[in-house]
Amino acid sequence: MTTRMGRVTCDLSISVDGYSAGLNQSEQRPFGDDGGDGWGDKLHAWMTDTEENRAELERMTAATAFIMGRNMFGPVRGEWDRQWNGWWGDNPPYHAPVFVLTHHPRDPQPMDGGTTFHFVTDGIESALKSAREAAGDGAVSVQGGATTVNQYLAAGLIDELRLHIVPITLGAGTRLFDGVPSLNLEQAESRAASSVTHLTYRVLS
Amino acid sequence: MTTRMGRVTCDLSISVDGYSAGLNQSEQRPFGDDGGDGWGDKLHAWMTDTEENRAELERMTAATAFIMGRNMFGPVRGEWDRQWNGWWGDNPPYHAPVFVLTHHPRDPQPMDGGTTFHFVTDGIESALKSAREAAGDGAVSVQGGATTVNQYLAAGLIDELRLHIVPITLGAGTRLFDGVPSLNLEQAESRAASSVTHLTYRVLS
Repeated sequence: MTTRMGRVTCDLSISVDGYSAGLNQSEQRPFGDDGGDGWGDKLHAWMTDTEENRAELERMTAATAFIMGRNMFGPVRGEWDRQWNGWWGDNPPYHAPVFVLTHHPRDPQPMDGGTTFHFVTDGIESALKSAREAAGDGAVSVQGGATTVNQYLAAGLIDELRLHIVPITLGAGTRLFDGVPSLNLEQAESRAASSVTHLTYRVLS
Repeated sequence: MTTRMGRVTCDLSISVDGYSAGLNQSEQRPFGDDGGDGWGDKLHAWMTDTEENRAELERMTAATAFIMGRNMFGPVRGEWDRQWNGWWGDNPPYHAPVFVLTHHPRDPQPMDGGTTFHFVTDGIESALKSAREAAGDGAVSVQGGATTVNQYLAAGLIDELRLHIVPITLGAGTRLFDGVPSLNLEQAESRAASSVTHLTYRVLS
């Protein structure tokens, strides 16, 4: 019997040319120029079809600890000189500890519904160690953005990569796999929904 | 009733990170460092499973005229100072006119089984015009490599893009969409086989 303890997963919505965000990301347009009008219109529109994509959406939030880069957490740069508790309101969808990678220390930020944002200043391996401890028998999910995912992939720390490929190309922006050496993958699952294809890969090496 | 006359399709096998060939392409290894031992081992291994992938394979060769870049046609560079009639033996799988983009003139090269290689020296639009004329009511297929496909995509000349996504990343090489501006696509079809996912997109703009 294999244990799933400490398994590290990653979900990322990307364009067909591999971008998780376009150029010119801002507070008003967190995913930048993605051809939509705002909050991830194009790259994340599939998430609003909760019926058709139920299995994938449930799997995305099934982890018991989460990791994200600071740019995914919010638009504040440098010191935490402005109150910012993420994009997700008072009750974020994580309901578990979320470890935010940053160079600037900040006290943990508890939210409603069981989410607490922890701010990690000593690197991706330290964040993963804390997340594994917090996750217990559950999985750790690396949430993104692509820059953070690329660091974990390059370090060989992702076990399962779930890509949600959206029918658009962006031509520029933040690209998944940028700077990541060759990986040997196993196609574990693949399913086409009406406006997105869900691909799950195990990372073998 | 819409006519399909002159429809331009493109089939390309790519890694999950979008490469159609690795670095260090050579006569011995036409697809370069792709993690395999030779002739496109990894990127094209799915083609040997003709039962599971029958529909996609039949669709790939259903066009009635083909276009390819010179690097896909063969390893000869510069003047045609060496006899080279493609990688496919005396009876290539095209059975139709194939227009090869090159800067160096050469007489048409008829092969067995109905394939004739025509060498086009005045650019991609001229090659497409000739291919459309040769295709009659049928489709024109842009065969690759990615450099050629990117030129046609950037010029807005591809109607249907069929990607065969292989579970490997290469990290470097010739990348589909490199330098191609943002495209609006429609996911027309998507099917997972055991070791490849077939994605078909219509190019809307």
